[in-house]
This record gives sequence, structure tokens and C-alpha cells, in this order.
Amino acid sequence: MAGVKLLGLWYSPFSHRVEWALKIKGVEYEFIEEDLQNKSSLLLQSNPVHKKIPVLFHNGKPIAESMVILEYIDEAFEGPSILPKDPYDRAIARFWAKFLEDKVPAVGKSFFLKGEEQEKGKEEAYEMLKILDNEVKDKKFFTGDKIGLADIAANFVGLWLGVFEEASGLVLVTREKFPNFCAWRDEYINCNQNKKYLPPRDELVAHFKARFQAAAAAAAAAAAAAPK
Amino acid sequence: MAGVKLLGLWYSPFSHRVEWALKIKGVEYEFIEEDLQNKSSLLLQSNPVHKKIPVLFHNGKPIAESMVILEYIDEAFEGPSILPKDPYDRAIARFWAKFLEDKVPAVGKSFFLKGEEQEKGKEEAYEMLKILDNEVKDKKFFTGDKIGLADIAANFVGLWLGVFEEASGLVLVTREKFPNFCAWRDEYINCNQNKKYLPPRDELVAHFKARFQAAAAAAAAAAAAAPK
Repeated sequence: MAGVKLLGLWYSPFSHRVEWALKIKGVEYEFIEEDLQNKSSLLLQSNPVHKKIPVLFHNGKPIAESMVILEYIDEAFEGPSILPKDPYDRAIARFWAKFLEDKVPAVGKSFFLKGEEQEKGKEEAYEMLKILDNEVKDKKFFTGDKIGLADIAANFVGLWLGVFEEASGLVLVTREKFPNFCAWRDEYINCNQNKKYLPPRDELVAHFKARFQAAAAAAAAAAAAAPK
Repeated sequence: MAGVKLLGLWYSPFSHRVEWALKIKGVEYEFIEEDLQNKSSLLLQSNPVHKKIPVLFHNGKPIAESMVILEYIDEAFEGPSILPKDPYDRAIARFWAKFLEDKVPAVGKSFFLKGEEQEKGKEEAYEMLKILDNEVKDKKFFTGDKIGLADIAANFVGLWLGVFEEASGLVLVTREKFPNFCAWRDEYINCNQNKKYLPPRDELVAHFKARFQAAAAAAAAAAAAAPK
């Protein structure tokens, strides 16, 4: 398997982080859509520990974990750099990338939950948003005027979170509560540096609307089948 | 605040990762012991997001998160490198460092829990150990013959896990179940490359024995005070 291939899911923010980095670098790649309902032997063999996308293949060798892949892409390919040059700025970018990486899964999952579990997820989301709202005050991007590692890691809060809100009807972000975050998000979605890399919002909304409806129907069926 | 200072806890594996990296690089540093019962203003100001140790200060500028600090130390200081040179080897080291970073807190916490919650923690620990047992088969260290990022990240499973077992009486690791892991751990603790950097085991055992006893006493007192 020569060249560069990416095993991913078109609607996944984790997968999209990698595509974004490859596009910044100008790397040609083949995208292979994974089927989570019937995981491919390629996925199971190339990421046996987590069995999760994305997996990047470069000259046949697999690399898993989106943030690990971003660092690899920055080091292995020529082109505009994804991390800043200065070690301290790099540390700050990595700190925020890790913060987002750690917080995003629980926040994303909370949209699929109900009742008490969802309330817990919402609390976590508010806590994350409060911290981000404070951090992005008067900032164009996380580390400087150029999209970098932390901004790519922030794609869930930049685009997917709003998609999840629209598709589910559950609204977490308001301009009153998180004014700086909203200003940053507007810039993030609309600036020319990002616009060309973000996936089509309407297609994401349609996809997740169907997912949320299916999850709600499954939960209702399980409740109806439960012993009374 | 000139030079290099580390805000940490002598018994913390996260804090110790940073000390280890500084020692590999031959960097002189001042260690400042934090008081978790009464967090210092230095900690609250330098790591307002997480309010956790370790925090490294270099020329007065703070960096938080042990794995972020390790990358910084490798980039900011001369001396033996902590990450391999080759981008693919670096990705593998980062993959395992992230795996350990993600799994260790839940495993460590499970020693402080009881009943069903502890059983859940034990399951997670067994799953982690099974993966590690498979990975370290016939390997001296995680990436090659030299201590690196992943090995430093593995300090909890290399030393602290055994300390927790001895101090708590709860044994998770047996040679029958995890023979490769045990062989790796013997080498990890006893090889000359590591020996000089690891903290004294007997002091750690005494510290955590007292902690586990205090946690058990607090749980017993809470149970006795609960309405019958």
C-alpha cells in the first residue's frame, strides 16, 4: 500500500482533523470510508488496540489516534507547519489540543443520552465552554493568527457542536452565556483559512438528525419492552 | 522566576515523569512540593484550567500536563533525546504514551474504590494489562533499546502499580496472567538506565499504605454515619 491513505468516516470530527492537516500540507491521499457496523479487517489489523478511525497509512505503515497523526503529518511532510516553531508556543498549542481531545468525547456523547446522564454531560459541556470562552477572548485562533494544531483539534466545538445542537434540538451555546466563544466560532467557520476545509454543514445536520432520531426510537422501543 | 522550577508532588507518577525527563537531559531544577489540601496560589495561577500538578516553569513561563511538558523538555533543552528521530517511530512512541496517559488514571483510582466500582476499575486494569502484555513481548522498551517518551509515560505501570498492590493488598498482576508484562517490568525497575531515576519504593509503599488506610477509615466512618 504505497502513498497516503486515510481510513475514516466523512462525518467524524476525528477523521476530519487528519484530512484538514493533509490539505494544509498539500498531501494527496486516498480516503477509505469505514463501516462501523461491520468493521473492516483493515481497521481491525491496523488499529487492534482501539479499533477506531482515523488510521493514516503512509507507505503501508499505519498510525492511529488523530492527535498522534497530526504531529506525524507535521513532521513527515513538507509544506506549511501545523505546530508553531517556538517550543513554548508548541507546548501551549499541545495543551489546548489535549484539553479539547480530553473533553470532546463526553460532550459529544451527551447528545445521545437522556435524563440524568444527559444532565451530567451538559454540566461538563458548560464547564468546557466557560474555559474556552475565557481562553479565546480577543484571540483570532488558539495560538496566533494562523490555524494550528489546537484549532484543528477544536473542530468539534467549532463546527460539530452547532451541528449537534441543530440536529438534536438541544441548545447548549448561547451568545449571552458564551459571547467570546461565539465570536471565535463565527470567525472559525467563516474565515477563508477554514471555510474550504470544513465539511458541508447541511449534510452533517442531515446525517446527525437521522442518528439522533434512530437513537431516540431505539430508546423508546427499549423502554416499551422493559418489564413494567 | 528564572531558571527551571517544577511544582509537583514527590509521590506522583505524573510529577515524576517530568523529573525523569529533566534528569535525562541533565537540566538543573528546583523542586517545589505542592500541598493538595491547601493548593498554592502558584498552582492556581499557573494552571487555572486543571489546578493540577505537575507545572514546569522555564524562565518564569508555566507549562502544565505531564505529556506536554515532556515534549517541551525534549525540544527546549540539549542532551539525549527523549523522542526517537524518525517521524514514524515518534508516532509509535506518542501512541503508547497516549494509551498509558488515558488508561492510568482510572486504574490508579480503582485502588481507592470499593465494591462494584472497584470491580469495574479492575476490569479496565485487566484490559490494559492484556494489551501491554502483548505489546512488550520480546521488547526491551516500548520503542527500542533506550528509555523514551512511552517508557517514561509507563512509570505508573512500571513502578507505582506494584507499589499500590503492596500497599493495598489488592493484587492485579500475576506472572501467570501477564508473563511478558512482568518480564518487562522486572527489566524496567532493575535496569541501570532506570534505577537511578525511580523514587525509593519503600517510601512510596509507606506513603500509599497510609493513604489507603485513611480512605478505608473514612469510608467506614461514612457507612456508620449513614441512616440505617
